[in-house]
Amino acid sequence: MAPEAGASLPQILLTLAAILAGAKLVGELAERVGQPAVLGELLAGVLLGPSILGLVHPDAPWLGLLAELGVIVLLFEIGLETDLKRLLGSGGTAATVALVGVALPFLMGFGVGEAFGLPRLPSIVVGAALTATSVGITARVLSDLGRLQDAESQVVLGAAVLDDIVGLVILTIVSRMVAGGEVTLASVGTTTAIAFGFVAAALLVGRVVVPPLFGLLARLGNPASLAPMALALALLVSVLAAQVGSALIIGAFTAGLLCAPTAQRHDIEQGVTRLGHFFVPIFFVSVGAAVDVRTFANPAVLGIGVALVAVAVVGKVLAGFAPVWFKGRKLVVGVGMVPRGEVGLIFAQTGLASGVLDAGLFSAVTLMVIVSTFLAPPALKALLGPRPGRPGAEAGGSASLVSEA
Amino acid sequence: MAPEAGASLPQILLTLAAILAGAKLVGELAERVGQPAVLGELLAGVLLGPSILGLVHPDAPWLGLLAELGVIVLLFEIGLETDLKRLLGSGGTAATVALVGVALPFLMGFGVGEAFGLPRLPSIVVGAALTATSVGITARVLSDLGRLQDAESQVVLGAAVLDDIVGLVILTIVSRMVAGGEVTLASVGTTTAIAFGFVAAALLVGRVVVPPLFGLLARLGNPASLAPMALALALLVSVLAAQVGSALIIGAFTAGLLCAPTAQRHDIEQGVTRLGHFFVPIFFVSVGAAVDVRTFANPAVLGIGVALVAVAVVGKVLAGFAPVWFKGRKLVVGVGMVPRGEVGLIFAQTGLASGVLDAGLFSAVTLMVIVSTFLAPPALKALLGPRPGRPGAEAGGSASLVSEA
Repeated sequence: MAPEAGASLPQILLTLAAILAGAKLVGELAERVGQPAVLGELLAGVLLGPSILGLVHPDAPWLGLLAELGVIVLLFEIGLETDLKRLLGSGGTAATVALVGVALPFLMGFGVGEAFGLPRLPSIVVGAALTATSVGITARVLSDLGRLQDAESQVVLGAAVLDDIVGLVILTIVSRMVAGGEVTLASVGTTTAIAFGFVAAALLVGRVVVPPLFGLLARLGNPASLAPMALALALLVSVLAAQVGSALIIGAFTAGLLCAPTAQRHDIEQGVTRLGHFFVPIFFVSVGAAVDVRTFANPAVLGIGVALVAVAVVGKVLAGFAPVWFKGRKLVVGVGMVPRGEVGLIFAQTGLASGVLDAGLFSAVTLMVIVSTFLAPPALKALLGPRPGRPGAEAGGSASLVSEA
Repeated sequence: MAPEAGASLPQILLTLAAILAGAKLVGELAERVGQPAVLGELLAGVLLGPSILGLVHPDAPWLGLLAELGVIVLLFEIGLETDLKRLLGSGGTAATVALVGVALPFLMGFGVGEAFGLPRLPSIVVGAALTATSVGITARVLSDLGRLQDAESQVVLGAAVLDDIVGLVILTIVSRMVAGGEVTLASVGTTTAIAFGFVAAALLVGRVVVPPLFGLLARLGNPASLAPMALALALLVSVLAAQVGSALIIGAFTAGLLCAPTAQRHDIEQGVTRLGHFFVPIFFVSVGAAVDVRTFANPAVLGIGVALVAVAVVGKVLAGFAPVWFKGRKLVVGVGMVPRGEVGLIFAQTGLASGVLDAGLFSAVTLMVIVSTFLAPPALKALLGPRPGRPGAEAGGSASLVSEA
């Protein structure tokens, strides 16, 4: 009943209908040509976005909220499917990939900035934008391909989560530099400790509190209540994470890890997966809609953009080879780290909003984000081959007319 | 990423967590004491709302959007479970209940206004607020009790839908009177024809278009896509309904009727029901949060409020007895028509916003809406008894630890 600021309620509902239908249709088409559905959803976002059809405006507050719910649901689902012991077991490998995957792209991006004659601060922001990994996109592709439980996937997920935590530390530091603030070793240490400490503390407390809590809820009554309660937990942990200086998506992933060992995991997963079918595509469409394809007409933008794409891919792929002791396919790990997605766009937007990046540099960074994001799904698909047949695997396969249990 | 106007994103997410957890917890408690879950969700809204805890503000735009999605999902679900042939079969009975259930409460409410010495226009608005039936609340209670397929429920649903259409016509006319505009027989006729014509036209066109459309989608690929596509259809039909002068919820119900005979109904229902577990409680919490319990401290408000409650109950219960030929339990039909819910609140708000109702009269009408809404669920429960055992019935029962298929 309450009208939405800016757009009227019917307009919002119509846009939402277009997002859902567009994401599902282009997603299905992507699967028909052998690509992960998420690629189609990103493309649907580009098509619906301001630079082509102009139906979806990625900065509308209502879309921001629904997209944020989408990425929270997605990371919660991923956490729910993650075995914490296996994740910690691949911790050394993942940490190596993450650290090399931050250091190499940062240095290479900074080098590209210097080579193109940029001042110091823009070069740092460009380098920082290259450090991110979009855990959402990689995890979604691995899930679409039915590969979440592979050894390579565990390393990629662990490294991508670490990368998100490290990325936040870098974002905090870069934001302070951009604002002209003082960056001391102590402030960097505090930011880092908070980011990692939150996950550790939440896991320690939650492992004790969460399973009995859901056991009690299950005895209280209705199994249909479990998924909404789990989502409430995910929202709570997400906000706590953001409040202590970590990120919403880290909190959502942690909440998923907490619900994974509960006896009610199956009921939670059933409900949250259906919710994800609705919310998650909204997130990917909004990421796609943030892309303005018109900015690529400028040759200067294209030049530095192509250089950034090259170091974006090379830097992360090399990081995949850093843990020399790892027995799995190192190329899969490296390629899995390539997509920058929304995290890269946040760096670009921070730079643009503060004036450190001009419109051209912003476009070049955006080009790097888009190409790396769009390159990874088909590359992973080509490396990993078709989805292995797994009865009872999560939805997302291409089996037609098969009703889900 | 985009901050929400007014409240910050973390605040919104935290409020949403409180709404989900509160609705589920108080809903479960309501079921434990033998009441429908919706009663608990309404109570959770009152508790969380501005007059008690102050955590949920019912006029926040984001909450309005999520609540609107909730009522659209709910009415779509109800339409999906409705057999159009049976609904039309009880058409004469339903139409009689609806028309008497509009005329009697209107005249009685107008009479109360005259008796308390109100001017003509406020008396008309008060009478109009008494005509509404909240199809959402009644349908949800019948669904909670597993009674949607009963003969009485079909009459109540049919009458409540007609009532919503008639209510819109009345709202349009009253709004015109309140604005000082001219109300002619021709304008009333046009408004009525549009409201009924939309449903008829949508059903005629949709019955031809929708089943092959979903057949094509099912062949295209993923059954997980069907529910989001059905929701996109529901949003589209809802907006079309609103655009031609009918209401969003009428469109959502119509879209459900259209999907009911498709071969993919089961997949659609599975997905949309899970979505409903999330969105529908948000709607009922927001209805509950619109209640300000503090206004009832005024004795003058209480006097006219109690008189309105009496005619609200008596008028609709008598309407249940109007179709003398109906073989079912007429008292169930009458009580099913009692809750005014959000529709009554819209009348009250229109009156308040235009200045026709002062704060006291607004509170009296609100009291009528609350009591009628809170009275109906336990009364129906008492009349209908416990939920009949139906294997594979929709979620909402109290079987614990039983995982849903």
